[in-house]
Amino acid sequence: MRKFIKKTSHKAGLPPGALVHVGTIKTEKTKITLIDYNETIFEVKELETIEECFDCKDTSTVTWINIDGVHQTDIIEKIGKYFDLHPLVLEDIVNTAQRPKIEDFDSYLFLVLKMLYRKDNEKEAKSEQVSLIVGPQYVITFQEIEGDVFNPVRERIKGGKGRLRKRGSDYLAYALIDAIIDNYFIVLEKMGEEIEELEKELVSNPQQQTLYEINRLKAELLYLRKSIWPLREVINGLQRGESSLVKDTTVIFLRDVYDHTIQVIDTIETFRDLVSGMFDTYLSSVSNKMNEVMKVLTIIATIFIPLTFIAGIYGMNFNPEISPWNMPELNWDFGYLVAIGVMVIIALGMVVFFKRKNWL
Amino acid sequence: MRKFIKKTSHKAGLPPGALVHVGTIKTEKTKITLIDYNETIFEVKELETIEECFDCKDTSTVTWINIDGVHQTDIIEKIGKYFDLHPLVLEDIVNTAQRPKIEDFDSYLFLVLKMLYRKDNEKEAKSEQVSLIVGPQYVITFQEIEGDVFNPVRERIKGGKGRLRKRGSDYLAYALIDAIIDNYFIVLEKMGEEIEELEKELVSNPQQQTLYEINRLKAELLYLRKSIWPLREVINGLQRGESSLVKDTTVIFLRDVYDHTIQVIDTIETFRDLVSGMFDTYLSSVSNKMNEVMKVLTIIATIFIPLTFIAGIYGMNFNPEISPWNMPELNWDFGYLVAIGVMVIIALGMVVFFKRKNWL
Amino acid sequence: MRKFIKKTSHKAGLPPGALVHVGTIKTEKTKITLIDYNETIFEVKELETIEECFDCKDTSTVTWINIDGVHQTDIIEKIGKYFDLHPLVLEDIVNTAQRPKIEDFDSYLFLVLKMLYRKDNEKEAKSEQVSLIVGPQYVITFQEIEGDVFNPVRERIKGGKGRLRKRGSDYLAYALIDAIIDNYFIVLEKMGEEIEELEKELVSNPQQQTLYEINRLKAELLYLRKSIWPLREVINGLQRGESSLVKDTTVIFLRDVYDHTIQVIDTIETFRDLVSGMFDTYLSSVSNKMNEVMKVLTIIATIFIPLTFIAGIYGMNFNPEISPWNMPELNWDFGYLVAIGVMVIIALGMVVFFKRKNWL
Amino acid sequence: MRKFIKKTSHKAGLPPGALVHVGTIKTEKTKITLIDYNETIFEVKELETIEECFDCKDTSTVTWINIDGVHQTDIIEKIGKYFDLHPLVLEDIVNTAQRPKIEDFDSYLFLVLKMLYRKDNEKEAKSEQVSLIVGPQYVITFQEIEGDVFNPVRERIKGGKGRLRKRGSDYLAYALIDAIIDNYFIVLEKMGEEIEELEKELVSNPQQQTLYEINRLKAELLYLRKSIWPLREVINGLQRGESSLVKDTTVIFLRDVYDHTIQVIDTIETFRDLVSGMFDTYLSSVSNKMNEVMKVLTIIATIFIPLTFIAGIYGMNFNPEISPWNMPELNWDFGYLVAIGVMVIIALGMVVFFKRKNWL
Amino acid sequence: MRKFIKKTSHKAGLPPGALVHVGTIKTEKTKITLIDYNETIFEVKELETIEECFDCKDTSTVTWINIDGVHQTDIIEKIGKYFDLHPLVLEDIVNTAQRPKIEDFDSYLFLVLKMLYRKDNEKEAKSEQVSLIVGPQYVITFQEIEGDVFNPVRERIKGGKGRLRKRGSDYLAYALIDAIIDNYFIVLEKMGEEIEELEKELVSNPQQQTLYEINRLKAELLYLRKSIWPLREVINGLQRGESSLVKDTTVIFLRDVYDHTIQVIDTIETFRDLVSGMFDTYLSSVSNKMNEVMKVLTIIATIFIPLTFIAGIYGMNFNPEISPWNMPELNWDFGYLVAIGVMVIIALGMVVFFKRKNWL
Repeated sequence: MRKFIKKTSHKAGLPPGALVHVGTIKTEKTKITLIDYNETIFEVKELETIEECFDCKDTSTVTWINIDGVHQTDIIEKIGKYFDLHPLVLEDIVNTAQRPKIEDFDSYLFLVLKMLYRKDNEKEAKSEQVSLIVGPQYVITFQEIEGDVFNPVRERIKGGKGRLRKRGSDYLAYALIDAIIDNYFIVLEKMGEEIEELEKELVSNPQQQTLYEINRLKAELLYLRKSIWPLREVINGLQRGESSLVKDTTVIFLRDVYDHTIQVIDTIETFRDLVSGMFDTYLSSVSNKMNEVMKVLTIIATIFIPLTFIAGIYGMNFNPEISPWNMPELNWDFGYLVAIGVMVIIALGMVVFFKRKNWL
Repeated sequence: MRKFIKKTSHKAGLPPGALVHVGTIKTEKTKITLIDYNETIFEVKELETIEECFDCKDTSTVTWINIDGVHQTDIIEKIGKYFDLHPLVLEDIVNTAQRPKIEDFDSYLFLVLKMLYRKDNEKEAKSEQVSLIVGPQYVITFQEIEGDVFNPVRERIKGGKGRLRKRGSDYLAYALIDAIIDNYFIVLEKMGEEIEELEKELVSNPQQQTLYEINRLKAELLYLRKSIWPLREVINGLQRGESSLVKDTTVIFLRDVYDHTIQVIDTIETFRDLVSGMFDTYLSSVSNKMNEVMKVLTIIATIFIPLTFIAGIYGMNFNPEISPWNMPELNWDFGYLVAIGVMVIIALGMVVFFKRKNWL
Repeated sequence: MRKFIKKTSHKAGLPPGALVHVGTIKTEKTKITLIDYNETIFEVKELETIEECFDCKDTSTVTWINIDGVHQTDIIEKIGKYFDLHPLVLEDIVNTAQRPKIEDFDSYLFLVLKMLYRKDNEKEAKSEQVSLIVGPQYVITFQEIEGDVFNPVRERIKGGKGRLRKRGSDYLAYALIDAIIDNYFIVLEKMGEEIEELEKELVSNPQQQTLYEINRLKAELLYLRKSIWPLREVINGLQRGESSLVKDTTVIFLRDVYDHTIQVIDTIETFRDLVSGMFDTYLSSVSNKMNEVMKVLTIIATIFIPLTFIAGIYGMNFNPEISPWNMPELNWDFGYLVAIGVMVIIALGMVVFFKRKNWL
Repeated sequence: MRKFIKKTSHKAGLPPGALVHVGTIKTEKTKITLIDYNETIFEVKELETIEECFDCKDTSTVTWINIDGVHQTDIIEKIGKYFDLHPLVLEDIVNTAQRPKIEDFDSYLFLVLKMLYRKDNEKEAKSEQVSLIVGPQYVITFQEIEGDVFNPVRERIKGGKGRLRKRGSDYLAYALIDAIIDNYFIVLEKMGEEIEELEKELVSNPQQQTLYEINRLKAELLYLRKSIWPLREVINGLQRGESSLVKDTTVIFLRDVYDHTIQVIDTIETFRDLVSGMFDTYLSSVSNKMNEVMKVLTIIATIFIPLTFIAGIYGMNFNPEISPWNMPELNWDFGYLVAIGVMVIIALGMVVFFKRKNWL
Repeated sequence: MRKFIKKTSHKAGLPPGALVHVGTIKTEKTKITLIDYNETIFEVKELETIEECFDCKDTSTVTWINIDGVHQTDIIEKIGKYFDLHPLVLEDIVNTAQRPKIEDFDSYLFLVLKMLYRKDNEKEAKSEQVSLIVGPQYVITFQEIEGDVFNPVRERIKGGKGRLRKRGSDYLAYALIDAIIDNYFIVLEKMGEEIEELEKELVSNPQQQTLYEINRLKAELLYLRKSIWPLREVINGLQRGESSLVKDTTVIFLRDVYDHTIQVIDTIETFRDLVSGMFDTYLSSVSNKMNEVMKVLTIIATIFIPLTFIAGIYGMNFNPEISPWNMPELNWDFGYLVAIGVMVIIALGMVVFFKRKNWL
């Protein structure tokens, strides 16, 4: 539940653009990293104060400022002032309850994305909001905590081979988005394994616990879906190439990212269908198992009831001495054996009947 | 039910534009408040008669006339005449069974919105109709009762800082709509908490009452959905900026409100999915619980039935004195103990069998 | 069923434009009423023959010819010839199995609508086909039977106040359509009350009858939906103002009717959701009730089965005189009391166990 | 099943335009009928060879060539060569597994339709593929078997009255399509009667057979839907009047056919909703009936179990002679009557209890 | 499961265009076949190295290079370099987890398709990725393994008759796509037979195994759907004829392929509806069968319970010698016969009652 709606009520009534952090504070201190590069230059700096990066805005190099932690609103405000960002953009950066979206402010693009990650020992995917400001020569990324999803991009810039160093800020933005979406596949793979396992459990031994697992997966997929559906529009918005900030050579790569997004959505929908089918199968399996129990037990009861009736008959105390019509069987020489024999015959007859009816 | 359809049948047959109040009268006397402001001026007045506000229409200041209570149709009529509103607009203002909508009458915009609020001690969200007339220099708001949703806006105007005092009537309208939609989040948060609680109850102790709660939530969400879906089109209509009354600088803020609306709709849809899943889980839980009861009880019965049969056998009155074949066990020295022993063995055998079959 | 498909098979194979009445004949004789008016003139006539109204076509007054009963195809044919209507229009007028639709024949508009009404003592809404021909200065309406839905319009024309007398045939058409759609709200209100009642019954005492009621409502809503959905397109077609017959001043009123139509459709969809949820609740309630019965009964049986077994033990006839090991309890001084005591203890133990397990 | 997919696998790998008949051969010999007419001329000929009709292509009369049987691919090929039809058109004519479609080859239109018919003694609707080639002065129709659906059209041409003789090939095509769609209503009417009957059966006496009937109807409707949905696009394609072969005066008639198609689709969807609801009702009815049985039976068992227990008590053999505490009731004067009395009281008590609980 | 998501996680973090094979390696060595033809020339070569085919790119003949096996990324890279393909295209070729798609790179078209095949002895359809590069005079196809789906096309080229030899690379591409889609029908036919068989089993003898079969079919159809839905857009993209590489004469053939695709999708949707209905029928059948068992068994029990009670009565040991009121029946001459008679009457009475209630 917590995942589906964040506590934003304390924001109600504030003017638009009011910088109020919404969400859990996941890191203590905001960490600012600056990467500055072009085909020949490469520089990494960890900054103490945000002001240190302000001189690199108008250089010809591509500047990537990565900010981990969005709860220190004063830092966000300073960046906003320096890079001339719209107050609503700043508000959205610190409010981690946003949907993925893209907004085009002519001089820069603003993107909100959701990063998904799943720790190995946890059963739940968590999501973190990543905001991107893509300007002509700079990219600013805001993360809630320090993560390692962007590391491969960092390594590729450092390595210096390939397109990344030769191209502009739009290609850097593409590389970052690609890294985020690649991560979705990992989360989905883990989920796929879980679904497979659950499917086996469903066949072999369905339990109340299985139901809770199915419900958990359902809610999880609902959550993923909610996070990823709007992404489609976001990437599509980028790919259509309407912004002058996105070069034509990058559009073809964004098309590739768009394909990946569609693939992710496709997989989520398929998973939803599978999990929904599992719920039905669960119900049917449980009811089958119950039926089996009830059937066998009822059959046992049914066989013994007529037998007990016969035993009851000969337990009656009608007096054979008064009249020869009163339970003469009691005084027969083989009365007892005949009675037992009749019981055995009835029992066998019923077993045969049940077998033939396929009830046993 | 009452919520889904209001009694409008007494209106049938009246000419269009007939001012007939539809809905419950929620306040006794109509209360008229006037706020007049620009960057330097700020004035609040509570008016006795509606005529007092008529001189402020053509001033250069922004005028906000707030009217609490729409059942005194004569007041509405006077406003309509003075501000030259279309009769159908007046009809819609006093008919509180409207869907949210926007209509563009060149010289003014007419908006109908639904305000949602939930008292802390009540389980049901209530909705109130709010109508807005947005003119070039004035905004008129009509509420069914005096509420406190607009208070923060009032405070911000009074405070005088920020954009509100510097911008025109369109920005005021935006601020009011924003305040209404912010309120939705509060209602949804409370609902989210309820769903969470119900989910726990569902796992620990599902009862008939739980089912009624689920149904109540379902109907509630249906109601919210009905109130909020059309809003999307309303805000979108505003945001597209086709009306000359909405300035470009305001459009960007309306885009933000639009995002919020989508978020609200998203959350409602997610809640619907969750609650619908809860219904299925409820059914399954109840049936599981029942199965468990039935199983244990049936097993007890089944164990005792063969035992009772054996007891029945030796309760038969076949006469051992007549023939040695008649129940010779009765005259054995340890007949009784053997019989008891056989019963114990059968009982144990069945328990082992049931255990092995996983039925116990 | 009858409602969902009318017997049209006898029409198959006839040429297009063949005037064959489809539907039940609901009135004996066709009744023709003529209302002729402008701002100053007002005249009502009941006509014996249709020819009497032919001279009023080209006058400057607005002429409203209302025809109750469409089974006398010769009358329809004469009108068709005089007003130069397309043969397919005439065919559609007498075939009451039409969907609502609008067709623009430059010189006149042809509309088919469904009028809904519900008698107080009947549980079913009935629908009647109303066709409108809207020409430059005349409106012709065709109803299946004489109804009272148009009475308020008649009264308003007669009264002479308001817009109706001042405006043209398009405004008259609007007023008639508005009257029809206003009537839908009355039908929906009654339905809403029924749903509410059924909901209460569902909680207090669900019965097989309740299920039939739910199914009836479902079919009813299906029927309403089928009648009203196409209406949306019809009114929208009018409202877009593409026809030169519809003046701009009327368009704004048609927009209002369009809003009402959307509201009607909205309400129907909501009702469908509610009723569909009621079906699920019904199933769950019935099964809950059954479970309750079964549980209590099974518990009673389960308590007595072990007791009966003990009684059976001491009903065995092992001979205590032969050996001291044979049922010595029978000869104890307090054997009987001990046996009764053990039974009481077992019964109490089971009751406590069931209570603790929450099965009682 | 057979209906849903035809055996086309033997076609795989053949070049496009290969004339391979797909479907069941339903008639022995291809029958060719030629109707040649204008306002004054009317001629019918049954042709032995297809070549006989080739001289009528360029006459000023309208020529209708009807071909019953499409398995003799050589005849189809000759027609194709003479009328200069595209190879894919010929392939589609002999492959009866087509979806309804329209294709515009400038000099002629190619239409594929499905004709539905239901023999009175059969429960299943069958469909037959009808292909139409509509040229400037000729129409060629291909049917799988000789049917009587086109007879009314033939009669109307022969009769010579009405529009048919005066208008061109496009009007003839319209008349044929209209005849086909009129036939749908007949099939739907029969289906409607079946649904109605089944609904009654469902209320009075639901059986396993009823379920199979419901499933059959479901599959049937699925099949109808599959055949008719694409028709909508086909007729719409015609009606939009983009082809120069379709005259404006015919467009208005096609609009009428389009309306009918929509009506057919509407009815199918309604039927689907009804039948789907019947499945739910079936399940509920069966479970209700079962519950009723179980309840009454269980109640009988439950009443007798305590009584049998009491009888069991007094069947115990505790020796009253040893001690006055051992079953003194046995030696009471009215012991037996008291025991019977207690039993009667218990039985009555339980009946009253069950009655009060509404379980009886 | 494996089918729904391929292990792509090891790709995360690599730069775009990195050639990493995703999927199972299904063939050992890459096999390269070259077919070179025009109306008069025809040549087939199996190549050892990819370089051998490089001289045929700019000839006037149509060149078809078929590559079986995509795991040897160096070969793919060489082709990419020589034919100047975009790095992302190469990446997509070796990543077999693609969705079907089309991309237009002015100088060539890139298509990804899914080929479906089903071995006779296997119950599961497998899919293989086929990529096509369509250039002005060449077509390159990439398959995962050597298949026989393209054989008919090869034969038709070899045969030399028909259009294939006369037309360009676009027609070859069409022929290949057509061959792939023709194969879908074969897979669907087999599936249709399976569904039919399952339907029979469902009626005659539903078992737990049947449920697994239904679920397998469901998952299978989900998989097919996922593979084929995007195809629709792909073929549509081709057919719209926006690429200069596709000639107008080929467009009409692509329209035919598009129709086939729609037919395939239609059939899949129909199958899904049928299989989903089968699940419901399964549940209902199983529950019906269970009900039948329970009913008969319960009835037997119910008949014997009152009888056993009567036998219990006369097993009581009230002493008839003490008082004439104590069980005088025991000393009647025909007491036993009367008791047995009463039992028979009760039993018959109950059987009649049950019969009349239709419970037997």
